[in-house]
Amino acid sequence: MPQPPHISRLPVPEISTLDADLQKYFRKCVEKLGLVPNVLRAYAFRPAHLRNFISMYNELMLSDDSGLSTLEREMIAVVVSACNRCYYCLIAHGQAVRELSGDPQLAEMLVSNYRVAPLSPRQTAMLDFAHRLTTTPDAIRESDRQALREAGFSEADLFDISEVVAFFNYSNRMAAALDLMPNPEYHSMNRL
Amino acid sequence: MPQPPHISRLPVPEISTLDADLQKYFRKCVEKLGLVPNVLRAYAFRPAHLRNFISMYNELMLSDDSGLSTLEREMIAVVVSACNRCYYCLIAHGQAVRELSGDPQLAEMLVSNYRVAPLSPRQTAMLDFAHRLTTTPDAIRESDRQALREAGFSEADLFDISEVVAFFNYSNRMAAALDLMPNPEYHSMNRL
Amino acid sequence: MPQPPHISRLPVPEISTLDADLQKYFRKCVEKLGLVPNVLRAYAFRPAHLRNFISMYNELMLSDDSGLSTLEREMIAVVVSACNRCYYCLIAHGQAVRELSGDPQLAEMLVSNYRVAPLSPRQTAMLDFAHRLTTTPDAIRESDRQALREAGFSEADLFDISEVVAFFNYSNRMAAALDLMPNPEYHSMNRL
Amino acid sequence: MPQPPHISRLPVPEISTLDADLQKYFRKCVEKLGLVPNVLRAYAFRPAHLRNFISMYNELMLSDDSGLSTLEREMIAVVVSACNRCYYCLIAHGQAVRELSGDPQLAEMLVSNYRVAPLSPRQTAMLDFAHRLTTTPDAIRESDRQALREAGFSEADLFDISEVVAFFNYSNRMAAALDLMPNPEYHSMNRL
Amino acid sequence: MPQPPHISRLPVPEISTLDADLQKYFRKCVEKLGLVPNVLRAYAFRPAHLRNFISMYNELMLSDDSGLSTLEREMIAVVVSACNRCYYCLIAHGQAVRELSGDPQLAEMLVSNYRVAPLSPRQTAMLDFAHRLTTTPDAIRESDRQALREAGFSEADLFDISEVVAFFNYSNRMAAALDLMPNPEYHSMNRL
Amino acid sequence: MPQPPHISRLPVPEISTLDADLQKYFRKCVEKLGLVPNVLRAYAFRPAHLRNFISMYNELMLSDDSGLSTLEREMIAVVVSACNRCYYCLIAHGQAVRELSGDPQLAEMLVSNYRVAPLSPRQTAMLDFAHRLTTTPDAIRESDRQALREAGFSEADLFDISEVVAFFNYSNRMAAALDLMPNPEYHSMNRL
Repeated sequence: MPQPPHISRLPVPEISTLDADLQKYFRKCVEKLGLVPNVLRAYAFRPAHLRNFISMYNELMLSDDSGLSTLEREMIAVVVSACNRCYYCLIAHGQAVRELSGDPQLAEMLVSNYRVAPLSPRQTAMLDFAHRLTTTPDAIRESDRQALREAGFSEADLFDISEVVAFFNYSNRMAAALDLMPNPEYHSMNRL
Repeated sequence: MPQPPHISRLPVPEISTLDADLQKYFRKCVEKLGLVPNVLRAYAFRPAHLRNFISMYNELMLSDDSGLSTLEREMIAVVVSACNRCYYCLIAHGQAVRELSGDPQLAEMLVSNYRVAPLSPRQTAMLDFAHRLTTTPDAIRESDRQALREAGFSEADLFDISEVVAFFNYSNRMAAALDLMPNPEYHSMNRL
Repeated sequence: MPQPPHISRLPVPEISTLDADLQKYFRKCVEKLGLVPNVLRAYAFRPAHLRNFISMYNELMLSDDSGLSTLEREMIAVVVSACNRCYYCLIAHGQAVRELSGDPQLAEMLVSNYRVAPLSPRQTAMLDFAHRLTTTPDAIRESDRQALREAGFSEADLFDISEVVAFFNYSNRMAAALDLMPNPEYHSMNRL
Repeated sequence: MPQPPHISRLPVPEISTLDADLQKYFRKCVEKLGLVPNVLRAYAFRPAHLRNFISMYNELMLSDDSGLSTLEREMIAVVVSACNRCYYCLIAHGQAVRELSGDPQLAEMLVSNYRVAPLSPRQTAMLDFAHRLTTTPDAIRESDRQALREAGFSEADLFDISEVVAFFNYSNRMAAALDLMPNPEYHSMNRL
Repeated sequence: MPQPPHISRLPVPEISTLDADLQKYFRKCVEKLGLVPNVLRAYAFRPAHLRNFISMYNELMLSDDSGLSTLEREMIAVVVSACNRCYYCLIAHGQAVRELSGDPQLAEMLVSNYRVAPLSPRQTAMLDFAHRLTTTPDAIRESDRQALREAGFSEADLFDISEVVAFFNYSNRMAAALDLMPNPEYHSMNRL
Repeated sequence: MPQPPHISRLPVPEISTLDADLQKYFRKCVEKLGLVPNVLRAYAFRPAHLRNFISMYNELMLSDDSGLSTLEREMIAVVVSACNRCYYCLIAHGQAVRELSGDPQLAEMLVSNYRVAPLSPRQTAMLDFAHRLTTTPDAIRESDRQALREAGFSEADLFDISEVVAFFNYSNRMAAALDLMPNPEYHSMNRL
C-alpha cells in the first residue's frame, strides 16, 4: 500500500525525539496493532495533549468497565464519523467494526448510511441517538433518553453512549482540522 | 460472503421468467462481470423501465463517445452517491473506482469526503461541480460552468459531467426508494 | 411572447443538421404539442443521449402501462421541481398540471408549496413521499413505503412513483447545469 | 375561477360587520383593484392589527417617498416569498410583477429561482441581498451592505430594501400561520 | 457601560432634528424606560417608517387587547430572535423577560435553547409553534394550529401568537441589515 | 438564585460518597471558584471518566503552555457553544468571557452571534475557523488553516485552536445528552 502524502498538515515529530513514555507507548501499539495509529503520531506534536487523548480514548473505547460492548462503541464511532464525513475515523473505525463483527458488509453500511443496516432494536436505538446527538444536539429531549432506556440501556450506558458520540464529534474535528491521513494498512484488513 | 437479506423491497422476478432479451443480457453480465448487478434484478420488476435504464446507463458510463474517462465518470458516481449517502451505489461504484484506478485509498476518500483526496486541478473542478450540482442545483451559475471550461473541459464534456451527476441523483433515489442491496461480491474486490 | 435569451448555455444544433430520426421526432412534437420542447433541442447536442432521454421520458410520463394517471405523474414532476427550484420544469410541467387537471390554482399551489393544496389522502401520500425522497433520500425507511401501500398504491405503483421522483431529480439537475430556458408558449397556456 | 375552500383558518368576519373606516377602505380596494385582497379580509378578525398592517404595507410598497421603484419592491416581495415558499404572496405579488413589468416570464423566474432571470447588476445586487437576508440573516456583514452601495443604492435605499425584505418575512409567516388563500382573480391576470 | 461603536450602519439623525411628534415620543420613552431604544433612533432615518413601526410594535407587544400576557409575548420574541441569532433583540427582549418573569435563568434559557427551560404545556406549545413558524414556515399544517388550540389558546390568541412570531422575523432582519446595537443599559438590568 | 430543577438527568452521586481524590478536587474548586461546576458533579457518576475530563479540560483551557490566551480559549468555547445552542456552556463560559475580558457586551455578542462583535483580525480569523470547523467540518481545506497562519497563529496555535473547538463540540453534546444545568451563580457574576 502506498503511504499517504502526509500524516498531518501540522508538524509531526520523529518518534525517536519523543519522551520515553510516549516512545514506549508507541512500541506497545506496534506490538498489539502492528502499527502506530497516525492520530497518535500527529498528537505527539503536543505531548501533554497526546497523553490526555490516549487516556480518554482508552477508557472510553477499550475499558471493561462499560455496559457497551467494544463493537457497539465502534459502531457509534463509525456512525458519528459518517455524519461528519471524517475520512480518518471512517477508515480506522470501519476496520474495527469489520474486525469485531466479522461482517464487512455491516461496516460498509454504517459508513454509507446506518439506516440500511439490519440492526437489532437495541442497536437501532443506540445509533438513532448517536445520529441525533451529532446532527441536532440542541433538539435532544427527555424522550430521546427514554428511548434508550426502553431499548434496555442502563443509566451508566446512557452516559457511555453519550460520551462516545461526543468524543467522535471531538476527534472528527481534530482529523478535519489537521487533515489527518489514516495508516494505509487499515484499507485491506478484515475484508474477507 | 453472506447474501444480503433482500435485493429490493419490491418484488424481484426470477430470471427464468424474464423476456428472452433480458435473460440474454443478464447472461452477458455474468460473463463480463461475474454477476448480475442487483439493480438490474430489481428493475426487472418493470421490464420496459429496465431496458431504458440499461440503455441510458451504458451510454453514459461505458460509451467511448465521451471526453471523460471511465474512471472520471465513476469518480463522479461515487461523489454524488456520497452526498446522497447511497449504500448501493457507494459499494458498486466504489469498487469500480478501485478497479479502474488501482487505488483503494482514492476510492475510500471519495466515499468519505472527496475534499481529502489528492486530486488534479481537473479532477477537483469536476468533483466540486458534481458536489454543488447535487446539493444546491438552484445555485448553479455561469461561473460554475466557466470553472469547468478553465479546467480544460469541452462543451461536450460539460454535458457529460452534468448528465453523470444528474443520473446518479436519479439512481441514488431509486436505490433509496427500493432499499436496494448491492451484490456482496463487490465488498472484497480490488482491495489490494 | 418574447423568446428567452438562450435555450441552453451549451451549443444547440440547428434542427436541419440533425439525424433523420430526430428531425422526424421533432416534427411529431410540433404536430402534437405545437412546439419542440427546448430540453430536446438542448439534448440534440449529444444525439445518443437525446434518444435515451426520449425513450425514458416517454415510458415514464406517457405510458399506459402504469397505475398512476398522467396527472399524478405530472403532479410529482412539479413537486420535485419545486424542491429543487427548477425553472424549466416548473414552467413546462406546471402547464401540464394545468392542462390535465383543468385547475390552474392547483398547479400554482404545487409550484409554491404543495402542502397548501387541497389533496386527497392518496395524493398527499404520493407527494409527501416525493418531497421526502427528493430532499432526504438517505432517511427513507420501510415506513415511508408502507404509507404509500396504505394509501392504496400497488407494488408496481411504488416503483413508478419512485422512478418519476428520481427522474425529475435527474432532469432538474440537467436544466440547472445547462441553464435551460423553457419554450415561452408554456406561460400563457391553460391559464383560464 | 372557483373560490378557494377558505380565506383563512381563523374566523373571517363579514365585511358588513366591520367598523366604518374599514368598510370604506375595502370599498376603495374594490374600486382600485377590483377585489379586496384576502389578507385584509383575514386581518379584519383583529381590526387594530389590520389598521397597522395597511399603514405599514402602503408606506413600504406604494409610497412615492422611496428610491426604489414599485416594480423593484414587488420583485423583492416575490424573491423573499419564494425563499419561504409562501403560496399567498407568490400569487399576489407574482401578479404585481407581471403587471408592473409587462413580463410574465420574469415573474415566473422570480417565483421559481431568481438566479435564472436576466437581471441588471442593480437588480442582481438587490435580490442577492434579499435572498441572503431572508435565509441567513445572522451572516449579514458590512460587505453585504457595501455591495448594495456599489450597485448604486443610497443609504435610504438600503433602509427600504431591508424593510421590504423584512416585511415579507413577516407577511409570509402570517400567510403560513393562517393558511391564507389568495383571491382567485390573481391567477389569470396579466398573463399575456 | 461603554457605548457601542455605533447605533446603526445607516445614518442616525440627531434627536433635535426630528419632527415634534417623534421628539415627544422619545421623551416619553426616556420617562418610562430610562432610555430611547436604539431601534427607534435608527428608524428615525425614515420617519414615516418609524411611525408605523411604533404603532405596530405597541399594539402587538403592549396592548391590553390580547389573550397573551406581555411575558408570553416577550418569550416568543426571545425564541424567534434566538432562531435568527439576532443580537439586538436577544439583548432587549431578554431584559424584558428578566423583568417580567423575575427569573434571569429563564431568560438565558430562552436565549440559548428554549428546549431546556422548565415550561408549562401552554408555554411549550406556544414556543414550539414559534420555533417552527420561524424556521420552516412552509411546513406549517393544520396540526400545528390544532396543537395551540389543545393547549388552551383561542382563535384570537392564534392570530396574536402568529403575528408576534412574524413581527420578530421582521425586526430581526432589520437589526441584521442595519447591524443595530442595543442600548448598553440592557446588559445589567434585572440580573439579580 | 433558585437552584435549577436538576443537575443532570442521570444519577448524581453525593460528594461525600466519592473517592478521596475527587472530594479533594471538588474542595479545591470551591476554594478557587466558590463552587463545584455542575458538569463535574454530573461526571462523578462515572469517576474514571471524570478524571479524564478534568485532565483534558485543565490542559486545554488553563495551561500556560499555549500561544492562546485564556480569554481567546474562552471566546472559542462560547462561539462553538452558540453554534450548538448549548445552554450549560454558554452560561459557564459566557461568565468566563465576562470575567477575563471585563466586557459583558462582548460576551453577549459571542453568545448571540459573534459576527456582530468588534473583533481584531486575529480574533476574527480564530472565530471564523471555530464556526466553520463546528458547523461544516467536512469542508475544511488548506485555505482555512492558511487563514489562521496569515493572522499570525503558529503551528502549535493551530493545534490548540482546533482542539478547543473540538473539545466544546464534545462537551456541548455531553451537556445536551445529560441536560446539564449550570450552577445558578454564573448568571449574576461579572455583569457590571
